[in-house]
Amino acid sequence: MTQSREIRLKSRPDGLPSAANFEVATVDVAAPGAGEVLVRNTWMSVDPYMRGRMTDRASYVPPFALGEALQGGALGEVVASNAEGFAPGDLVSSFFGWRESFVAPAAALEKLARAANVPDQAYLGVLGMPGHTAYAGLLEIGQPKAGETVFVSGGAGAVGSVVAQIAKIKGCTVVATAGTDAKCDWLRARGVDHAINYRTCGDLLGAVRAAVPKGIDIYFDNVGGEHLEVAIEVARPYARFAECGMISGYNAAEMTGPRNIIQVVGKSLRIRGFIVSEFAALRPQFLADMTGWIADGRIKWEETVLDGVEKAPDAFIGLFSGGNTGKMLVKL
Amino acid sequence: MTQSREIRLKSRPDGLPSAANFEVATVDVAAPGAGEVLVRNTWMSVDPYMRGRMTDRASYVPPFALGEALQGGALGEVVASNAEGFAPGDLVSSFFGWRESFVAPAAALEKLARAANVPDQAYLGVLGMPGHTAYAGLLEIGQPKAGETVFVSGGAGAVGSVVAQIAKIKGCTVVATAGTDAKCDWLRARGVDHAINYRTCGDLLGAVRAAVPKGIDIYFDNVGGEHLEVAIEVARPYARFAECGMISGYNAAEMTGPRNIIQVVGKSLRIRGFIVSEFAALRPQFLADMTGWIADGRIKWEETVLDGVEKAPDAFIGLFSGGNTGKMLVKL
Repeated sequence: MTQSREIRLKSRPDGLPSAANFEVATVDVAAPGAGEVLVRNTWMSVDPYMRGRMTDRASYVPPFALGEALQGGALGEVVASNAEGFAPGDLVSSFFGWRESFVAPAAALEKLARAANVPDQAYLGVLGMPGHTAYAGLLEIGQPKAGETVFVSGGAGAVGSVVAQIAKIKGCTVVATAGTDAKCDWLRARGVDHAINYRTCGDLLGAVRAAVPKGIDIYFDNVGGEHLEVAIEVARPYARFAECGMISGYNAAEMTGPRNIIQVVGKSLRIRGFIVSEFAALRPQFLADMTGWIADGRIKWEETVLDGVEKAPDAFIGLFSGGNTGKMLVKL
Repeated sequence: MTQSREIRLKSRPDGLPSAANFEVATVDVAAPGAGEVLVRNTWMSVDPYMRGRMTDRASYVPPFALGEALQGGALGEVVASNAEGFAPGDLVSSFFGWRESFVAPAAALEKLARAANVPDQAYLGVLGMPGHTAYAGLLEIGQPKAGETVFVSGGAGAVGSVVAQIAKIKGCTVVATAGTDAKCDWLRARGVDHAINYRTCGDLLGAVRAAVPKGIDIYFDNVGGEHLEVAIEVARPYARFAECGMISGYNAAEMTGPRNIIQVVGKSLRIRGFIVSEFAALRPQFLADMTGWIADGRIKWEETVLDGVEKAPDAFIGLFSGGNTGKMLVKL
């Protein structure tokens, strides 16, 4: 019998989540039945979207249940298999994160080929959901053309850092925001034309205007709030907005909307929210492009890693204070 | 020498325009030179978008100049012509509204065929810019499919009333708002499924939810403000928003944005502002469809008519209190 520690949602956060909203429990994991696989997780992901599932309301995914283990993207190694096509040692991805080991039907797992030039955990970052989100949102919704200007908020995050680099690959001028000077330096080293520390710039609208006086053609939004208002203000006619997330509002009791929303009409703006699952069919093309760009050194990434499943709440909470550069991960 | 009265912008409105912002002047109109035409206007249009041009700021059309005649859509009759293709008695449309007579190069005029079953002034309404706006915004941006639900604000206005009726022609359920019971009755008589008097319903969100509990697939926005917030709240996943106008904000010093904008992400909403000129190429198809629907009795319209160019400011100001049912016109 295998034992597994898991993180459960103890209470629903009111505002910013705290350690008290989570609890660690140890459970017994049975041997895999027919068609099932026993997996030991090696890496798990924490992502801003999980905050939405901690609130009890209807959304595109159901809320997490109180007293049950949280879920999320994870990578693991097959320990025992009772299912065709899976053998001990195989690398698999699943949505059974926030736990050390689990048994699941083979259909709930995806077997991954270990890539030569990337560590496994890249499948939770540049080669996983965040990378796919960046790729699909920028290319499908943003439709960038060489010479255009792309504004990305949360530019040093798991999604934003990939958006910024793909935009450079596509020949765009890129202005990105991040919350520390070190993150801005990283962005500049990656070729980003204008990196703005939104915490210290004083006047975000002024800083973006000064960086790109002619305005922006594409806004890739991870932040919402003031960033969205600034993007509307500097948008050129027919600008495309890929609304990927609004982390500034995830813990807010009440948000304010962009006061300049009326400009959507006069500038013929196109604002489109999306969930990466809408673009699932792009995955082979995404993986082919991304592995090529990684091999060519055109896409690089940072990771922030915490050790041990018991650190998963800290890792998750850290997302909201910008504690991560690049992808926030928990090594199990 | 012909004399013409014209309405000039005397001062820029601060908030709701008032009569004091306008002045009547009489000018001499010279005989047409080579390639020019003398036109006596018979009808002129006032439209909400003109409010934007009364403020001194960059937009998709330049602001009106102080001390000069206002401009806008107008119909007139050729009085004298020095240009090939135009003869006295011809019906022409132009953007030289807010004046009784004018001389212009032939290229600034469009000669119109008088339609058998519609009065001339329909070219300023259902067959003109407002009709074209409704047609293009609903069909191109909204992409309505039979069985879907369409929400239109300002449903009894020049644009909204056409949107509501085309949506019915396309087999949609339609919920529309208007500001008087009489306007709501008119909408119901035109087949609109749910007409809501937004001034008296008390709780607009509750009223729309009660009318269409399963939510909306398309929102055609003429109003903005609370209406937009309600539309976001009741939008189904992947709903399309055709942002045509936000009259509730045109006279406001500061607007508030939709506080629930974050739902754009989770519901994958598509919010797209537009100006009818983007869809200029649709005009022949629009005219063919619309004249057919009018002949079949499937599109009807109302007009609110004021007499004399000196009444143009009153007509324009009346748009913001909902003084019009259907198209607001001035007969010259």
